[in-house]
Amino acid sequence: MQTKTTINGLNQQQMMDTIGAIQGNPGLANFVFRARNRWISGGENRSTIRDFYGAGAEDSSRTQDFVYTNGEPPVLLGSNEGANPVEYLLHALAGCVTTTFVLHAAARGIEIQELFTELDGDIDLNGLLGLDESVNPGYQQIRMRLHVKADCSEQELDDLLSYTQARSPVCNTVCRPIPVQVTRA
Amino acid sequence: MQTKTTINGLNQQQMMDTIGAIQGNPGLANFVFRARNRWISGGENRSTIRDFYGAGAEDSSRTQDFVYTNGEPPVLLGSNEGANPVEYLLHALAGCVTTTFVLHAAARGIEIQELFTELDGDIDLNGLLGLDESVNPGYQQIRMRLHVKADCSEQELDDLLSYTQARSPVCNTVCRPIPVQVTRA
Repeated sequence: MQTKTTINGLNQQQMMDTIGAIQGNPGLANFVFRARNRWISGGENRSTIRDFYGAGAEDSSRTQDFVYTNGEPPVLLGSNEGANPVEYLLHALAGCVTTTFVLHAAARGIEIQELFTELDGDIDLNGLLGLDESVNPGYQQIRMRLHVKADCSEQELDDLLSYTQARSPVCNTVCRPIPVQVTRA
Repeated sequence: MQTKTTINGLNQQQMMDTIGAIQGNPGLANFVFRARNRWISGGENRSTIRDFYGAGAEDSSRTQDFVYTNGEPPVLLGSNEGANPVEYLLHALAGCVTTTFVLHAAARGIEIQELFTELDGDIDLNGLLGLDESVNPGYQQIRMRLHVKADCSEQELDDLLSYTQARSPVCNTVCRPIPVQVTRA
């Protein structure tokens, strides 16, 4: 007899083991993620991402850095060296909601066949530029449309999406006020 | 006589023209940024970023998509296919604070010689996993340390950093509650 061991590309045994370990020792769920960034010129700068702390230890699984470049389009004084920071934020949000959705689908035994999302967000750059003190320099609103095919009912998908939105780390970093401490070293 | 036309890699004339145009027509500062993302498997998914609306028109400066891949480390059930979404959020924050700092330094006539940042953020994954309803699934706090060398006083750098934190779009998307509307298409 063969046991099915993955769902939505996730190893079910590893999922259950992880949940069990955290239920036995909730402190294992404390993670510290990190990034380092260096300015290049104008609106171009580059981050390296590699190490993090989690599951009670420093991670050593990554043998090289991830490297990502921020840029700006010409209308924002750049040369399209990369997506710009507010676009990267949409990428982070898309990825987090997607992964959270897929994870909790797996936990409910729902198999996802297809999943893609489209996001847009409104910004008034009068805030960034300091031209209007009444404008929030951040996104005013972000909209995310999710297209999904799965082996369950529409109601189950709606329930899963509500649960996902309440559980996604990036979604809850955006929709709640999170303290950002910026200091000079 | 030669006129100096760039500061911190930014074209001064273009900066002044942009500010002037927005002061004359504040609606030019309304931008809509976008991303599309497709799930691959497990914690792996990929975004494409290209078009946006701004300065009163659809942008057409980009001749190809930017493509970024989210992944997860083994301890979070992945294979390090890319940085994970909460790490990308740190990259977005680092880039935005850096670009905002450099822009307003230029506006003040401050030349930046070197600028790099280190970020870390705390997350309790009991929130993501739904194991503790009292835990915010998002970052609990993000810390950013900025190392800068510039041709001005320490006091001017401190003033510039405070101003930057209040003006950075990503920083203000994180530290304020921003509505995220997630719907099924």
